[in-house]
Formats: sequence, C-alpha cells, structure tokens
Amino acid sequence: MHIHGGDVYGSRVELDFSANLNFLGMPESVRAAAKAGVDLAEHYPDPFCRKLREAISAAEDVRPEEIICGNGAADLIFGLVLAKKPRRALLWSPGFYEYEQALRTIDCPIEFIKLRQEMEFQFEEETLSQIVPGIDIVFFCNPHNPTGQVASFSFLQKLLRRCEETGTFCVVDECFLDFVDKGERHSVKSRMDQNPRLFILKAFTKLYAMAGLRLGYGLCFDTEFLARMQEVMQPWNVSVPAQEAGIAALKEKEYVRRFQELLQEERRFLTQEMAAMGYRLYGSKANFIFFQGPTDLAEFCKEQGILIRDCSNYRGLCQGYYRIAVRSHEENIRILQVFRKRA
Amino acid sequence: MHIHGGDVYGSRVELDFSANLNFLGMPESVRAAAKAGVDLAEHYPDPFCRKLREAISAAEDVRPEEIICGNGAADLIFGLVLAKKPRRALLWSPGFYEYEQALRTIDCPIEFIKLRQEMEFQFEEETLSQIVPGIDIVFFCNPHNPTGQVASFSFLQKLLRRCEETGTFCVVDECFLDFVDKGERHSVKSRMDQNPRLFILKAFTKLYAMAGLRLGYGLCFDTEFLARMQEVMQPWNVSVPAQEAGIAALKEKEYVRRFQELLQEERRFLTQEMAAMGYRLYGSKANFIFFQGPTDLAEFCKEQGILIRDCSNYRGLCQGYYRIAVRSHEENIRILQVFRKRA
Repeated sequence: MHIHGGDVYGSRVELDFSANLNFLGMPESVRAAAKAGVDLAEHYPDPFCRKLREAISAAEDVRPEEIICGNGAADLIFGLVLAKKPRRALLWSPGFYEYEQALRTIDCPIEFIKLRQEMEFQFEEETLSQIVPGIDIVFFCNPHNPTGQVASFSFLQKLLRRCEETGTFCVVDECFLDFVDKGERHSVKSRMDQNPRLFILKAFTKLYAMAGLRLGYGLCFDTEFLARMQEVMQPWNVSVPAQEAGIAALKEKEYVRRFQELLQEERRFLTQEMAAMGYRLYGSKANFIFFQGPTDLAEFCKEQGILIRDCSNYRGLCQGYYRIAVRSHEENIRILQVFRKRA
Repeated sequence: MHIHGGDVYGSRVELDFSANLNFLGMPESVRAAAKAGVDLAEHYPDPFCRKLREAISAAEDVRPEEIICGNGAADLIFGLVLAKKPRRALLWSPGFYEYEQALRTIDCPIEFIKLRQEMEFQFEEETLSQIVPGIDIVFFCNPHNPTGQVASFSFLQKLLRRCEETGTFCVVDECFLDFVDKGERHSVKSRMDQNPRLFILKAFTKLYAMAGLRLGYGLCFDTEFLARMQEVMQPWNVSVPAQEAGIAALKEKEYVRRFQELLQEERRFLTQEMAAMGYRLYGSKANFIFFQGPTDLAEFCKEQGILIRDCSNYRGLCQGYYRIAVRSHEENIRILQVFRKRA
C-alpha cells in the first residue's frame, strides 16, 4: 500500500507536519455539529445529501444539481473514474497518488507530464500539447501537490481550451486553493457553466481540519454525469456527522479569513528561515512547503516526535524531497529547531 | 437512482419501519465513543484501522490480517467487486440491490437464481446447480434480504462445496445474522480457515443502530485478496468516529443479548397479529418481516407518518410486497393500528 502523510497511528507522534490541515484546528461549531450528527446517526444518512448540497450551493453559487458529495474528495476521485471509465489518462508528475490509484482500478493506461526540477517544478504551457485526442481524462491539481505551484489563469484557460479541442474530460482539483492568497483568482469555477467536460474537486478536510470526518464535493455542469457517478457509488457514502459538520463549516467565514491571514504570515516565516538554513525551496503558494534536504531528515524528525512527508515515493522524485505543512508559529519554531539540530 | 428504505429525509416521518435497525437505539457507550472520535477527527483516520481490527479480531476470533473495514458493508461490496473483477456473477432474486449495483459498475453480466413465491421464497438446493465453472462470484445473503429466510447449515455446506468445485468466489453476507435466534449456528465463519474463496460480510450498522456512522467489515482467509481490495479503495474510507464507535460497540455484549431476546418476542407478536389480520407472511427469521398486503399500503402508511419498505422495486417482485422492521412493542402496536385502519 502507498504510504501517505498523516498516519499518526503507526508511531509516537507529537507534531504532525505530514498532513496539510488548518492549524487552528476544527472550529467549535463544526465539532458541535458533528457531535449533534452522532445523535442523529441511528438513521441512515441522507443518500442525496439534500441539506448539505443546498448549503454548498449557496456558498459556491452553483446549482444543487451540479454538486455531488463524497466520503472525502478521494471517494469522488474513485467514483468519477469508475463512472467515466477513461481508456487513456494524463497526469502531472510528481502528483497526488490517488489519481493514479483510482485509474489503476480500471487498468487505465496513464501518461505523464513531467514537472521538471530545473524549471522549479513550474507548469510549462508547451507541455499541454501532450493532451491529444484519445486522452479521455486529465487530473490537474491546483495548487499542485506536493509542489505547491499555482497555475496562472492564462495557463488554466489554455488547459481548458486544449481539453475542449481534444474532447478530454478535465478534473481540476482545487482542494488546496483556499489556502492560496486570493485563491479565487486561480479557480476555474467561472468556466464551469456550459462546460460538461470540467469537474472541480473540493474538500472540507483541510480547510476546516476535519480530515477524520471525511467530506469532499465535486462540481460539474453535466448533471447526467453526476447521476452516473451516483450509480457507481454506494448510496450512503457520506456519514451523518460529516453532513452536519459540512453545513456548519460553511458558516465559518471569519475563521477562514483569519486563518488565511495567519497562514500567509507563517508561510513567509518558514520559507525565510528554511532558505536561510540553506534548504532548497520551490516557492510553494499553498499551506505546505516543498523542499529538498538531507536524505535522513524524515527519520531524524521522527526520532524527535515530528512527522514530515517524505516525498521519495512520489513518481519522479527521489530521496531528499520533502513536504511539510505550514503550522502555527509555535509549532513552526519547534520544527525549525529540529532542522537546525540536523544541520 | 434505486430507492432504498431508510430515507427519512424526503418527507415527514414519525416512525421508520423501512430500515432494519436495532430498536433499542445506539448504545450510550457507542454514542460517547463516536463523539470522542469527533474530537480526534482533526487527524486523518487510521487507514489500516489497526485498533478496530484488533477489537474485531478478539470478538470474532479471526486474525487481524483477515479483516478489512469499510465505510459500511456497502463500501466493501463495491471494493471487492472492483478487486475481483468477475466476468460472470450469480445472485439470488429478489435480493439486496447493492450486489447488482456494484457488479454493474464493471459491466459484469449477472445471472439469477429465482426464489419462488410458491416455495415460500425458501432456498432450494437443486438451484445450486446454476453455479457452474465460469461463474466467478456469487453473493449469498443469510438471512436473506428482503425475505428473511435463513439457510440451513447443510445448505451452506453444499453452497461452499459447489463453489469450491467450480472455482467460484463466494461472498456470504451475514449482516443480519446476529438478529437470528442462535444465528451463530448458521454462520459459515467456521469454514473460513484455509478457504481463500470465501468472503464474509458483516455490519455494525444494524445491530448497534449506527447506520449514520457507516461501518462494516469483511473476513477472508486470502490476505492477498484483502490487500488487493485496499489497493482499489481509498486509504481513509472509515472515519475516526466510526472506528471509535466500532471499538466501543464490540464491548456491548449484554445490550446485544437483551436486544436479541426482545426481538424474538416482538417478531412473534407482529407475526401473529399480522397473520390474524389476513396478511400473507413468509416466515422471516430476521429483524424484519416480509409480506404481501394491499397495493396502496406504503402510501397509506406514509400518510400516517410511517415509512415501510415498498419491495416492488426488487427484481422478481411486484406491487404489494413489503418489508417492515421489527421495532419496539409500542411502535409495533402503532403500525398494527395503521394496518387495521387500512384493512
């Protein structure tokens, strides 16, 4: 099994920098709503997530019919692959393993656009020519995981245009976009209307620190495709506590705003300190930092009770690449101390 | 989308007889554990469900490696179909829709063994001859849903022997077996050892009235197959509250014993009363009753705020077939009153 970040169960962990979650923790209102959801959980969940979809509809300004909810965004990745059954797929590498894992379940051949170290892992427009007729699906993660690179809107327009020309279904994973400064400027949501080949993935997991509750959603203009997804997924995939938590989370606008401010500050702080220590950074704009360091860094941190994401199991990367979450100031100081000890 | 029972969200519902859940409700310890799980849900869930699998291992006397957990039993049905990719399947009809739905996701042709009304929907040994080489998988539900029929152990032995001869993977769904008087005598768990072609499905959902939390598990001697299932399912499918609730639930032996006693009494009561009212019953031994009644009965009950399972959308059934859960004495009296009004 592929090893992800966030496994705080396998060893003694004091600080988890390996999962990219909101360091302010779960808002009280979300916690309370999830617990109230436990009290309602003698019943099966609403298979149609009616109230939750209405709340998302209001927050996203998208029609409820154009929304599908899942047991985390990962659930939807598997569901959409199964509903679409692409015969040829294109991914960016390095990239989030779940796209590849989901495509493998139906033995779909996969091609890769390589993000190059010598180009600072930035997206290169010329590589979009790899999207050709016959590529049934692409998964594009913006900001990218694990690099934290954000695509410019002009790049995104070219991506969508190219997919339109080649008849390719385009999944844009915006799960980390809320962590980007003025992230909405980099969203393709405005291009959703009338485009049945665009699917946008979003998660509650990270922004509201509710990874253990599992909740994600997808937006798509093609409501028939969403119905097909429902057909290949179990009816009760989203638990009652998750549905209730999601409805509460969408009201937490002030919490999100406050977090976004703190995050920009802490990203700057971590970035400067790490650069000063001689680490090779790649300018992440998300709530995590992607960098190169000593090959035993993850092991060294683990001995100090700190989990960081060893990225050597990402396709196209090797030993010495890491990803750490941007955490609270106190925690960031802690990890910098450990980094210094290793240096 | 296929309409199941238990949708209490679409209309005003006072009593839900359409989902087959423990009428004593969720045990307090389970509720408390799920809420404590919410407090731990800032982290991703343990993708390996280590503690939960240890608890199940102790309760079931099966090695942890032979256990896989899912987001409800339904999650595992989809997962095992995707991991097995059968090219020909055999189901009993009428039967639980999820087997068919999961098989359709990979376009697997399905054959059916018909349960015949004139045989009181009982399992017929002769029909096992429909299991032939080339049938890659069968799903057998014991007790059966929606009929409530329990297979004798001799029938089960013949089923397993037949599957062994034909090289067929045999999924036995025992999700309702805990509701059967001396149900353990009808379990195939004792035949699991050394049999890599047997998969047993179980759920927490019904016995502990935690349908909204979503938790099921599977038992299989073939640990390589379970690893393959993990590969086609997302890593974090079981939420933290569900994992915590499951661990607590397994300690509730007295609650289960008390419920089983009450259940036998109430099933007898409902059965006698309904038979006296002239309903055509089929001798269910589970926590629900399968019967024929007036074709407008579901509609009539709904007007009175009571949800019952209209079984007309089961393959092989037609209008006038219903399934109701066995509920508490008070609730059972309420539904009998409504039935009387209609008569």
